[in-house]
Amino acid sequence: MSEWRRDPVTGRWVVIAAERGLRPSDFRAAPEKVHREEACPLCPGREQETPPEVAAYRAEGTAPDTPGWRVRVVPNKFPAVTGAEPVGPEAFGSFRAWPGSGVHEMVIETPAHVRGFEDLGPDQVACVLRMWQERSLVLRRREWIKYIQVFKNVGQGAGASLAHAHSQILALPFVPPEVRAELEAAAAFRKATGACPLCAVLQEELAGGTRVVLAGRHVVALAPFAARFPFEVWVLPRDHREDFGRAGETVLREAASALREVLGRLARLLARPPYNLVLRTAPVNPVTGDCHWRLEILPRLTVPAGFEFGTGCYINPLPPESAARYLRRA
Amino acid sequence: MSEWRRDPVTGRWVVIAAERGLRPSDFRAAPEKVHREEACPLCPGREQETPPEVAAYRAEGTAPDTPGWRVRVVPNKFPAVTGAEPVGPEAFGSFRAWPGSGVHEMVIETPAHVRGFEDLGPDQVACVLRMWQERSLVLRRREWIKYIQVFKNVGQGAGASLAHAHSQILALPFVPPEVRAELEAAAAFRKATGACPLCAVLQEELAGGTRVVLAGRHVVALAPFAARFPFEVWVLPRDHREDFGRAGETVLREAASALREVLGRLARLLARPPYNLVLRTAPVNPVTGDCHWRLEILPRLTVPAGFEFGTGCYINPLPPESAARYLRRA
Repeated sequence: MSEWRRDPVTGRWVVIAAERGLRPSDFRAAPEKVHREEACPLCPGREQETPPEVAAYRAEGTAPDTPGWRVRVVPNKFPAVTGAEPVGPEAFGSFRAWPGSGVHEMVIETPAHVRGFEDLGPDQVACVLRMWQERSLVLRRREWIKYIQVFKNVGQGAGASLAHAHSQILALPFVPPEVRAELEAAAAFRKATGACPLCAVLQEELAGGTRVVLAGRHVVALAPFAARFPFEVWVLPRDHREDFGRAGETVLREAASALREVLGRLARLLARPPYNLVLRTAPVNPVTGDCHWRLEILPRLTVPAGFEFGTGCYINPLPPESAARYLRRA
Repeated sequence: MSEWRRDPVTGRWVVIAAERGLRPSDFRAAPEKVHREEACPLCPGREQETPPEVAAYRAEGTAPDTPGWRVRVVPNKFPAVTGAEPVGPEAFGSFRAWPGSGVHEMVIETPAHVRGFEDLGPDQVACVLRMWQERSLVLRRREWIKYIQVFKNVGQGAGASLAHAHSQILALPFVPPEVRAELEAAAAFRKATGACPLCAVLQEELAGGTRVVLAGRHVVALAPFAARFPFEVWVLPRDHREDFGRAGETVLREAASALREVLGRLARLLARPPYNLVLRTAPVNPVTGDCHWRLEILPRLTVPAGFEFGTGCYINPLPPESAARYLRRA
């Protein structure tokens, strides 16, 4: 029997359609084309093929834009948004357009030509998370930046055009609709119950256990109640923390190791599926409170299609309870 | 220079990132696996492989679930929603779940083993649109059905699992979030200006011309100002009509022929790309007024990824003005 579920955190609707009784082997993604390493513009020795770096963790005494880096940040070569402070809008009748204000950076996550966090050690993943933090703190110095979206697209089926492990940071001049919708849902929940919805959810999930994948000292990984995607997993701090940019070192390291562990299990269980990784955190300038930061792992084993675009609801053929069970065992 | 645009109809945000100066040849989709026709469960002679038909246009004297049909409707073999009137919700702490109420049907659009509307004659496409109407009128007899989502997924890259031309109808027990958001935006626009936003947009588009693809007597095809996807096209009636279910025969025939023409041009220009087709129309029970029905063609040449899932905004690398110009010439 299928089931409509409403996400208590985001207000999002999904239908969990378990009729087909699918197992992990039914979700294996098609194998991807292999990129030749010698052509990779993100590998060490090819620093001139990217715009000049804006930040890096690198060996002492090595110069910018030369080898010796561990994590390297460059402006995106094909930025979706471009620089300047927002002005406008320009109006043409009913239409409104603004210059494409914002900042678009790429984080090259390792000198090794590998694909994702599942191929890195936990220390290296922690290094990447620390760089995301550092960039978030730098980018928010521009007062007009209101939201910083960090994300990873891994594999062609998840929209990646480069095979070498990297993430993207898009600093935006407004709080985008998905974030605004969640803040509104959270404010309503807090008004009704006095609590943050994700704090309440976390307490119930830890007590129930069926959707928990990993429960660490400071960080939990769980399959969300209203998962949009088969094997969707959220990694989040136990304590209420709005701002990923201010997360402490202990939480950050534990989040890195949980991420890596879950992604490793997904890779083994599903033959290295394509996935997106999305950071949800509080807006900046000012930081607002009704958010509990988290990292969402979104495996791309199903294709959002006409139904999803038409309605904004998702059909998920695998109950998150089954996903969590498979992932606990993997 | 990239540009933020807000859709005056839906309130949706996109960034038009034209930096790369892409041309149609940059968007050609990967070739798809060819399905063998002899294995197709939707072809005539295999009617026993689908659930029994609930409606069909068929030659006089032919029996249900035998050959002789022109368009055939069956319950979806793997329904996302299942039958009964809504009850509930069941509450578990902060979580709410409802039985998966709704109706999920499949429309087999032609006896010929072809892929999409671009392969059919305009009369056959009109027949399919008429069947959508007929099913909409039948399904809404259940008072608890509040929205009827009609859509097509064409090609594997657009989520299709069957190669034979078909569409899906999902009748829902609530007005889904994307539709509700548009109704709210439209009500606000009407309050401010006295007009339906799409009527206003249509008037301006027809006067300006840059985003118009086809301008028929009753129906227009245009690339929307805030297109989410490269080559996104909307087909809609010139006059304000809320309810696709009550569209007149003349408008329906003209919409069918415009759809077929635009899809044929897309197929030629982009080597038969995968696409979704999504009907946006008014809710039912009751039919509400602040909607102007339309058919949205969403070619799947880019992959919505981490940015889109995180923010709800879209990055579109092709300005709709360019898309319309290419499509006018194709």
